[in-house]
Amino acid sequence: MAIPPAAKRVFQGIIHDVYQWSQKLFDGSSSTFEMIVRQPSTEILAIVNNKIVVLMQQQPGRKAYPSLPGGRVEAGDTALHTAQRELLEETGYTASRWTLLDEFSGNQKYYFRESLFLAWNCKKVGSQKLDAGEKIKVTLVPFDDFLQLCRNPRFVAAIPLKFMMYEALLDMKKRGELKKRLKLNIWGKAK
Amino acid sequence: MAIPPAAKRVFQGIIHDVYQWSQKLFDGSSSTFEMIVRQPSTEILAIVNNKIVVLMQQQPGRKAYPSLPGGRVEAGDTALHTAQRELLEETGYTASRWTLLDEFSGNQKYYFRESLFLAWNCKKVGSQKLDAGEKIKVTLVPFDDFLQLCRNPRFVAAIPLKFMMYEALLDMKKRGELKKRLKLNIWGKAK
Repeated sequence: MAIPPAAKRVFQGIIHDVYQWSQKLFDGSSSTFEMIVRQPSTEILAIVNNKIVVLMQQQPGRKAYPSLPGGRVEAGDTALHTAQRELLEETGYTASRWTLLDEFSGNQKYYFRESLFLAWNCKKVGSQKLDAGEKIKVTLVPFDDFLQLCRNPRFVAAIPLKFMMYEALLDMKKRGELKKRLKLNIWGKAK
Repeated sequence: MAIPPAAKRVFQGIIHDVYQWSQKLFDGSSSTFEMIVRQPSTEILAIVNNKIVVLMQQQPGRKAYPSLPGGRVEAGDTALHTAQRELLEETGYTASRWTLLDEFSGNQKYYFRESLFLAWNCKKVGSQKLDAGEKIKVTLVPFDDFLQLCRNPRFVAAIPLKFMMYEALLDMKKRGELKKRLKLNIWGKAK
């Protein structure tokens, strides 16, 4: 998915912008198309002793929900930088190595760049530093339990990551591959 | 998910509006929160002789993709009315009975009401009447093949419907229940 080159920003919000462009139709006529561009975000699979860091989050105005560490990438910042900062602030952990596991970009009507990082060999180096809008409990979850989380309707995560988790539940080969990608990083072998 | 009562529309687009509101945080301070409200839409599981109607769609500016019949609910129209009109226009079929299978409403940042209808005992009564922005091929797909469609990244459907399909693939009991819900309607038994 991408923002069409001809698209123009018609509204700038806090985390969402609105873009419109003139789209030629099959009969030669034109119509104004519209899409949302959301502020990019990061999400982190943080590995601690073969387990995955899952947050139990509370935010104002909504019920508690499980999620991965992560957060919005501010203008001028990088996704990796954001991921490293968010992991430290939300959990007190740092990682000895970071790799970009995948990147998502939303759909035709909703451009949303999400960077999924793998943070391996995480160690606790301090305490949480939370925003006024956050209450977070850090839990460590074994891989097989983590996979089951995609079936929890309250689990907040990138939709393509949820599909990856469902695929890993359905397909033993894909499950092995995903496990291997995470394990390789846990044990520090070449990627 | 819902639009908070205090939310005010700050931009009105073609199919997306932007809402903002002041949200009290845990420390008593406030922050402006923002969400998108997208024009409601319908999606139809249309049953023809035990098979499900799947469209192969082409739209300007994107690759062909499978989807279900359906479309946007215009202001002043109802979801059911829209579904009946879209099924007729996109496929030339009408149904002898309609039931609302489920309704979805998006997430905290993206309110999107999607009504999923079951249209049973469909019969072809005419030819397609397509917009200038549509090219559609109608196909009939057996239930088990339909379920596999959620694994196709090109399949455009409501995200919660894709999760329902994954659940039906993972869980024989849920698969049976879904099949029963559709079969009951196919055979015209009381719902």
